[in-house]
Amino acid sequence: MSTAGKLTGVIPPVVTPLTDDRRLDIASFERVINRLITAGVNGLFVLGSTGEVAFCTDSLRAQIIEEAARIIDGRVPLLAGVIDTQTPRMLDHVAAATAAGVDAVVATAPFYAVTHAEQIRRHFEILGDRSPVPVYAYDIPVAVHTKLDPGMLVDLGRAGAIAGVKDSSGDDISFRRLCLKNRAAGEPLTLLTGHEFVVDGAYLSGAHGSVPGLSNVDPDGYVRLHRAFLAGDWTTMRQEQDRLAALMEICLSAKAVTGWGAGVGAFKTALMLQGIISTNQVPEPFDALSGDDVDAVRAILAAVGPREPLPAGRR
Amino acid sequence: MSTAGKLTGVIPPVVTPLTDDRRLDIASFERVINRLITAGVNGLFVLGSTGEVAFCTDSLRAQIIEEAARIIDGRVPLLAGVIDTQTPRMLDHVAAATAAGVDAVVATAPFYAVTHAEQIRRHFEILGDRSPVPVYAYDIPVAVHTKLDPGMLVDLGRAGAIAGVKDSSGDDISFRRLCLKNRAAGEPLTLLTGHEFVVDGAYLSGAHGSVPGLSNVDPDGYVRLHRAFLAGDWTTMRQEQDRLAALMEICLSAKAVTGWGAGVGAFKTALMLQGIISTNQVPEPFDALSGDDVDAVRAILAAVGPREPLPAGRR
Amino acid sequence: MSTAGKLTGVIPPVVTPLTDDRRLDIASFERVINRLITAGVNGLFVLGSTGEVAFCTDSLRAQIIEEAARIIDGRVPLLAGVIDTQTPRMLDHVAAATAAGVDAVVATAPFYAVTHAEQIRRHFEILGDRSPVPVYAYDIPVAVHTKLDPGMLVDLGRAGAIAGVKDSSGDDISFRRLCLKNRAAGEPLTLLTGHEFVVDGAYLSGAHGSVPGLSNVDPDGYVRLHRAFLAGDWTTMRQEQDRLAALMEICLSAKAVTGWGAGVGAFKTALMLQGIISTNQVPEPFDALSGDDVDAVRAILAAVGPREPLPAGRR
Amino acid sequence: MSTAGKLTGVIPPVVTPLTDDRRLDIASFERVINRLITAGVNGLFVLGSTGEVAFCTDSLRAQIIEEAARIIDGRVPLLAGVIDTQTPRMLDHVAAATAAGVDAVVATAPFYAVTHAEQIRRHFEILGDRSPVPVYAYDIPVAVHTKLDPGMLVDLGRAGAIAGVKDSSGDDISFRRLCLKNRAAGEPLTLLTGHEFVVDGAYLSGAHGSVPGLSNVDPDGYVRLHRAFLAGDWTTMRQEQDRLAALMEICLSAKAVTGWGAGVGAFKTALMLQGIISTNQVPEPFDALSGDDVDAVRAILAAVGPREPLPAGRR
Repeated sequence: MSTAGKLTGVIPPVVTPLTDDRRLDIASFERVINRLITAGVNGLFVLGSTGEVAFCTDSLRAQIIEEAARIIDGRVPLLAGVIDTQTPRMLDHVAAATAAGVDAVVATAPFYAVTHAEQIRRHFEILGDRSPVPVYAYDIPVAVHTKLDPGMLVDLGRAGAIAGVKDSSGDDISFRRLCLKNRAAGEPLTLLTGHEFVVDGAYLSGAHGSVPGLSNVDPDGYVRLHRAFLAGDWTTMRQEQDRLAALMEICLSAKAVTGWGAGVGAFKTALMLQGIISTNQVPEPFDALSGDDVDAVRAILAAVGPREPLPAGRR
Repeated sequence: MSTAGKLTGVIPPVVTPLTDDRRLDIASFERVINRLITAGVNGLFVLGSTGEVAFCTDSLRAQIIEEAARIIDGRVPLLAGVIDTQTPRMLDHVAAATAAGVDAVVATAPFYAVTHAEQIRRHFEILGDRSPVPVYAYDIPVAVHTKLDPGMLVDLGRAGAIAGVKDSSGDDISFRRLCLKNRAAGEPLTLLTGHEFVVDGAYLSGAHGSVPGLSNVDPDGYVRLHRAFLAGDWTTMRQEQDRLAALMEICLSAKAVTGWGAGVGAFKTALMLQGIISTNQVPEPFDALSGDDVDAVRAILAAVGPREPLPAGRR
Repeated sequence: MSTAGKLTGVIPPVVTPLTDDRRLDIASFERVINRLITAGVNGLFVLGSTGEVAFCTDSLRAQIIEEAARIIDGRVPLLAGVIDTQTPRMLDHVAAATAAGVDAVVATAPFYAVTHAEQIRRHFEILGDRSPVPVYAYDIPVAVHTKLDPGMLVDLGRAGAIAGVKDSSGDDISFRRLCLKNRAAGEPLTLLTGHEFVVDGAYLSGAHGSVPGLSNVDPDGYVRLHRAFLAGDWTTMRQEQDRLAALMEICLSAKAVTGWGAGVGAFKTALMLQGIISTNQVPEPFDALSGDDVDAVRAILAAVGPREPLPAGRR
Repeated sequence: MSTAGKLTGVIPPVVTPLTDDRRLDIASFERVINRLITAGVNGLFVLGSTGEVAFCTDSLRAQIIEEAARIIDGRVPLLAGVIDTQTPRMLDHVAAATAAGVDAVVATAPFYAVTHAEQIRRHFEILGDRSPVPVYAYDIPVAVHTKLDPGMLVDLGRAGAIAGVKDSSGDDISFRRLCLKNRAAGEPLTLLTGHEFVVDGAYLSGAHGSVPGLSNVDPDGYVRLHRAFLAGDWTTMRQEQDRLAALMEICLSAKAVTGWGAGVGAFKTALMLQGIISTNQVPEPFDALSGDDVDAVRAILAAVGPREPLPAGRR
C-alpha cells in the first residue's frame, strides 16, 4: 500500500466490460486485467471516467472493486475512483473502497452544486484527512466544470493531503506550471497525465506516468513509450506517440453517437474486435457502437493498432 | 398520487436542516415543513439543489424522505429529487424514493460523463418507463451543464414519459418557447419555475407554479403571488415579486462564501434568524455563514422580509 | 438630442438592406425606415447586431448613418452602434457618428482582449466622458462574452456616464435586479430589452422600452405591445407577445445556416417576402437564406405574422 | 515575399511601445525590433494580440506597419494582424497592410456575431482568395470564442487558402492532431505555436516554429530553444523551456490588474526594466502595472530572466 503513493509509469483506467444485459462481464474483465498486467503496466485504476464510474450503481461499484482485487491478487497496486457529487458522498465511497482493499483512491473536485476554490481545497483536505489510503486528485474540467489550480495542488501535496494528480484537464500550460511548482517544492506529488494524444509532451513537461484510456486497447504501446522515456529516447517516444495518437482517432470516428459514448464506446469496440471482451455494450442511456461506427474503429485499428495480430475472425 | 401529475401552485424545495455535527435536525425539519403547509403551499419537494441532494449520502437521502413523509402525513404531495450522475444511478434513487412513498420524482439530465441530446431524451424515456410515479424533468444547466430543449420536453410530455418541468435554466426565452409549445400540444406538461426573482414573469409566460428556494423563508409571499396570479391581479403580483426579489438579495450578500454555500447558506441563516431552524449549518466542504454575512442577511430580512414578526431575541 | 437620454418605447435595431453585390440598398433602407416611423416607433437604432455592425466596413458604417439621418430627417431620434473591440477604436466610431449627427451612441463592453470588471467600468466612464451625446450600454454576452453587472450599470448611470442600457443578456434575473437597483437610485437609467420573445416580461420587471430585431418585420405588434403596457392591459400584452414569440420562431427555423445568419437572415427574408426590401442578401461570409429555409419563414409569417396583407406575388 | 509562406523558427509578436500619452513610441519600437533581429529571430509579427491589435485605431495600425517596415528594412519577413470582427472588415485591413508592404497577414476566425464552422471555412477561403500575400490562420479561442478544427485547417492548406497556423488555442490535443493531419497531407501548412510555456511540447508534436509574446523579453531564449530543436537536443530544449516557463510567470504575477493588461502589461514592464522601452504604458481602458506589480516582474526577471545583464539603474 505504501507504494501507491509513489506510483509512476502506466496505470490504465480499466474499462468495465458488460454483458448484453448490462451486468459486469467477469470473464472479459479478467482478460482485460490480465492482458494489462502481462504488458507490464504499473498499476490499475478502476472506476474512472473510462471505467464508467458515473454510470455504475453502488452495488456495481462494489462488485468491480471486489473482482478487480481478486483478479489482480496483489500483482500491481489497485486504485479506485470515489467520484460523486460532493464531499460526504465521496467519503462514503472512500470507506467502501478502502474496506475492499484498494491501495489508493482517486477523487475529483466536487460538482453539481457550484463550488469554488476555497471549498475545493477544503474538500481535498477532508478526503486526505479521513482516507486510510493515499488520495489522488483527478483534474477533469470537462466533467466537473472546475479546474484545479496548480498552486493549490502542490500545497495539498506538501501538506500530505494528496499523493498525486491525474491530469485530464486538457490544459498543457497549467500542467507545465504544476510540474515546475511540484519540482520547486521537492516533488511531493506524483503527476500523471490522462491525455492519450500527448503523453510524450506530458513527460517532457515533467509527468511521472500516464493514465490513458487507450492503453486498454494498446497497453504495449504506452509501456514502450514509458520505457523510452526512462531511457531518454525522445525519437522513439515521438514515433510511438504519433502512432498512438493516430489510433486514438477511434474515439473521434463515431457518427451515430457523440460524447462519452463515442470515446469509451470506441475503446470497448476495439477490445471486442481484438477478442478481449465479449461485447461492446455500454450503460444506459448510451447504446453500443454499431454498423459503420464499428467499421470505422476496425479500419483505424487495422491501420495503426497494436502490432499483435488480431484473433482469427475479428479482422 | 395521481394528483402529483397535475401539481400547480407553490411547491417549495425544502431545505435540509442540520445539527451542528451535520446530522438531520428532525425537530427543525418539522417546523420548516409545518410552517410551509400552514402557509398554503401546494406540495413539497425534498432533495432538490436547495435540499442539498448533491451532499446527502444515500442513508441521509432515505432518512429525509422517510421523515418528510411522516411529517407531511398526506396533507400535500411529496416530491423527491433522484438526482445523480447518470441513468442507472438515478434509477436506484427512483426505486428507493418510490418504495418510501413519494408522489413524484424529480430528475435532471445526466451529468459528469458528457451526454448529448439523443441520450438525454433516452434518459427521460427510461425514467418515465420504469418509475411507478410521475417524473418531473429538472432543467438546471448551472449544475448539469446541459440545457433541456423545449421541443424535446413537450415530446416527452406527449409520450407520457414526464409529467412536468421544473425550470431553473435562467433562460426566459427558452421558457416562453416551452410554454407556447406545451400549449400548442394540449398542455401535457405542468410547468414550474425555480427562479425566485422572476416568478411573475414566468407566470406571464405560462407557468403553472413555482419551486422557489426562497419560499422556505417567505412562504406567504409566494403563496400571495400565486393567488394574485389566479385572480389576474398583475399589480399585486409585481409588488409582491419586487419585494421578494429584494429579499432574494440575501443569496448575493455573503462575502466570505461563494457559490452554493452563499445561496442555501443564506436561506438557512434567514430561517435560523426567524427561529424556524436551530442552526444554519451546511454540509462539508462548506461552512455556515457567520459574522458579517449573517448580519447582511439579518438586515435584508428586516428591511423586506416577511411581514410576520420575528421571534423575540432574533431581531 | 436631449430627448435621446429619455428614450422609451419601441426603438427598432434597423436592418441594413443590401443589394445582391452587397452594397447598401438605399431604396430598401428608405422603405424599412419609413414603415417603422409610420408604425409609431419611438427611435431608430442603426448599426446594432441586427444592423450588421460587425460586418460593416468603416465606410459602410458612415454611409448607413448618413442615409439614416437623411431619411429620418428628425422625425425620431437616431441611435448608432459604435461597437468595436476596445475603447480607442470605439472612440473613433463615437467621433464619426456624432459628427454625422446621431442623437445617442450604443456601446458594448470591450472584447477580443480579455477585459474584466474594473476596466469595463473604466471603458464606459471614458466613453461617457468623451462622447458629446448620451451613451447607452449594450449588454450582450453572447457577442462579447462578458456580462455587465447591474450594480455597476446603476453606478454609471448615477455618475452620468451612461443614459441607459440595452439588455440582450438573456438573463432575466439580472435584468430584474437592474430594474430594482435603478428604481432605488431614482431611475438614472432608461432600460430597454432586446429580447423579442419576452418583452412583456421585461416590462413586468421594469423596462421602459424595447429594441426588438423582430420589430423590423412586425413594428405594429411591438407598438401595440408598448401601448398596452402604457394602458396597464396585461391581457392584451400577453396575447400580443405570444403571437410575436410564435413569429420569432422564424429565427430558429433555418436548417442550412446557423448562428447570426439564421437570425438576421430570417428578418431580411421576411422583409423581402413582405415586399419591403429587394433581396435578403447578407454580408460575407454568410449567404442569404434560400430554398426550404425561405419556405419555413414564409409559412410562419403566413400563420402568425403581421395582420397587414402581404403584397401580391409574395405570398 | 514568397518566403513568408515557409516561415519557421521564432517569429515574435512584437509589442507596441507607447508614450505616456499613448502615442506610438518610435524610438522604443526601433530598439525592440532591432534587438529581436539581432537575436536571430526568423520573422516579426506586428498587430497580434500582444501587439495590441484590438486597441489600435486604424491610423495607429497603419503607423505601426509603416514604421515596422521601415525599421526592419527587409532583414526578416514582416507579418501583420488583420484582426477584426468579420470578413469585410478584415478585408479592409488586408488591403491596407498589403499596400504597406507586409509579407503575410494573420487572421482569426470571425467573432462578435455568432459564426459557425461552415462560415468560418468560407471566411478563410475568401481571405485566401483576395489577399495578395499568404494568409496565416490564428487560432485563439480565448479571444474569438471558437476553435478552428484541425481537419478544416489542413483542407484550407491543401486548397492554398492559408499558408500556416498560429496556434494559441491552449489545446495540445487538437494541435497534435493538426500536426499529424498536416503531415499526412504532405505538410501544406507551417505550424507555429503561441504558447510560451510549452514550446518544446509543440515542437515534439510537430510545430515548425513559435510566436511567443515572451520572446519580446527574452529573444535569445526562444532562439536557443529553436536551435536546440534543430539539433535534436531535447535535454537543452527542456532546460531552456523550464527557465522560460518560470519567466513567463511574470504574466501571472500582477495583483492589481487582470486579463489582457496583466499579460502584455508584464511584457512591457519587463522591457522597461531591461531598458528597451521607455515606459510600460498600455492602452485604455487599461493602466500600466505599477508598485508591487512592477516589483513582482522585477523579482522574476532577476531570478530567471535572460542572462544578459540588465542595464545599470534598472536592477
